[in-house]
Amino acid sequence: MTVPETPASGGPEIALAIVGVGKIARDQHLPSIAADPRFRLAATVSRSGGAEGIENHPDLDALLRGRPDIAALSLCQPPQVRFEAARAAILAGRHVMLEKPPGQTVAEVQALAALAAAQGVTLFATWHSRHAAGVAPARDWLAAHPPRRVRITWREDVREWHPGQTWIWQAGGLGVFDPGVNALSILTAILPAPARLTSADLHVPENCETPIACDLTLAGSGGLEIEARFDFRWEGPPAWDIEVETDAGPLRLSKGGAELFIGGAAQAVAAPGEYPDLYRRFGALIDAGVSDVDLAPLVLVADAFLLGRRIPAAPFHE
Amino acid sequence: MTVPETPASGGPEIALAIVGVGKIARDQHLPSIAADPRFRLAATVSRSGGAEGIENHPDLDALLRGRPDIAALSLCQPPQVRFEAARAAILAGRHVMLEKPPGQTVAEVQALAALAAAQGVTLFATWHSRHAAGVAPARDWLAAHPPRRVRITWREDVREWHPGQTWIWQAGGLGVFDPGVNALSILTAILPAPARLTSADLHVPENCETPIACDLTLAGSGGLEIEARFDFRWEGPPAWDIEVETDAGPLRLSKGGAELFIGGAAQAVAAPGEYPDLYRRFGALIDAGVSDVDLAPLVLVADAFLLGRRIPAAPFHE
Repeated sequence: MTVPETPASGGPEIALAIVGVGKIARDQHLPSIAADPRFRLAATVSRSGGAEGIENHPDLDALLRGRPDIAALSLCQPPQVRFEAARAAILAGRHVMLEKPPGQTVAEVQALAALAAAQGVTLFATWHSRHAAGVAPARDWLAAHPPRRVRITWREDVREWHPGQTWIWQAGGLGVFDPGVNALSILTAILPAPARLTSADLHVPENCETPIACDLTLAGSGGLEIEARFDFRWEGPPAWDIEVETDAGPLRLSKGGAELFIGGAAQAVAAPGEYPDLYRRFGALIDAGVSDVDLAPLVLVADAFLLGRRIPAAPFHE
Repeated sequence: MTVPETPASGGPEIALAIVGVGKIARDQHLPSIAADPRFRLAATVSRSGGAEGIENHPDLDALLRGRPDIAALSLCQPPQVRFEAARAAILAGRHVMLEKPPGQTVAEVQALAALAAAQGVTLFATWHSRHAAGVAPARDWLAAHPPRRVRITWREDVREWHPGQTWIWQAGGLGVFDPGVNALSILTAILPAPARLTSADLHVPENCETPIACDLTLAGSGGLEIEARFDFRWEGPPAWDIEVETDAGPLRLSKGGAELFIGGAAQAVAAPGEYPDLYRRFGALIDAGVSDVDLAPLVLVADAFLLGRRIPAAPFHE
């Protein structure tokens, strides 16, 4: 990937549309686009409303037909319906940014990447947690101080953080891996070498298709041992922590990567924020004429389902 | 992949060792190596015996230390223990051929491929069914006659074809995908464009971790619809068939790809045999200094576990 990590110097304004105006679009995408001078929100696609004062289309095909000036689309729907939208947008010659996870399956995202390459457009499979303030400095520090052991704790109350998201519990909906893949996206960004899954215990409520909690073990290079515990049943304050042991002392990322501690001392880290940084990078990728599709986090999730033991858990009722 | 499809012209003899002397090694690998002038079986690694008249080592490390002249290893153990062996062999500078499936997870095979590239050795992740006589002619014919619909039927009696292979039923053991991945390896070889999984019903016996049968639907390019049914519970003669509808009439691969019918007429196909052709190709890859690691079949299996609905089935007892 040859895209500069520094902010783009600013090219021509890009007209952009949001597809799927749900919670994540309202909370993160709309304010980030409003604050980014490179992008102008030109339209939305939403069956349930859209954004105030912005032209809305009931379906994507109508937008692709009616607005050839819109060069870029940001897809914020649930992953179950994202493939067809991404495919149509790429075939119409538009640049596409995908919320995480980038698809329901590994193969479909590989197919989109091949299609984007053939069409000469940018595909950006985003992992927003990688843009948290502590992640890049943690990666840089670990490059010089090899990790010996990693412990990941990712626990949150699903009723508080995913209200009404019933699709999470359906086959393909990922369950606790929906937040857990954020942890895996950080892990795969900060480790000096790739890790592989060696065991997975998946705790699946009797009335659900997907796990509500899981225990993973992974192995990295040089004898690195990694343990991860994801839990949706936690009713206290959430914890999104990654603790790393090294010969030079511990490193800890807290609050989903926003805070970094080395040797117990808080580090001064600053970043534009996860979603503002995603749009900065989307602009830079478009300028450079390249894509960024890193499937490593999704591959680890698929591997967990492939390799995992399923352990029955109490039924879940929201 | 720039390796010639024609037989290698014959370079220097390569000393080779088999690791894991079980049913597949005895039935297929040993006779294929004996018939191949490029390879000489120099040793085996087996805890339970090895092959008559061939030097046997109780473990791989002993062989790697004691026989630096052995340039290539063919790994025939169950996938659960294959990663560490492949890693050790690659780090010792040996070329490695992997039985199918190439690993327990997608990420571990990606890690092996990266390691082989860094070490400058050949890694060959084999899919033996792709070397059945009808597969290459089917691929060539479908390149000119786009498939509209594909129906895969892969059914066999697990008691007859996998006696005592209890690891198949453990987490990571693939269940009916152990033979089913052969069908997927042919499918991904003959289709003109990649396919993606759209649904999977996994029938899992109450006392097993892995499915005994499954129903898959996949989508290909140009509206191609693919249905696959794998079933281990079949007690009659096995069926390993792929039927393809095209505008120019039907194509059918039978007997796991050994027989090809176009428009209902049997085609004259000839090939050296699956495993002899695997070793021919392994020699050609070593000569060319390249690897062949196509993960598409394993990715579709992982996607099936990721996306699949699990449906309880009657307990299985061998």
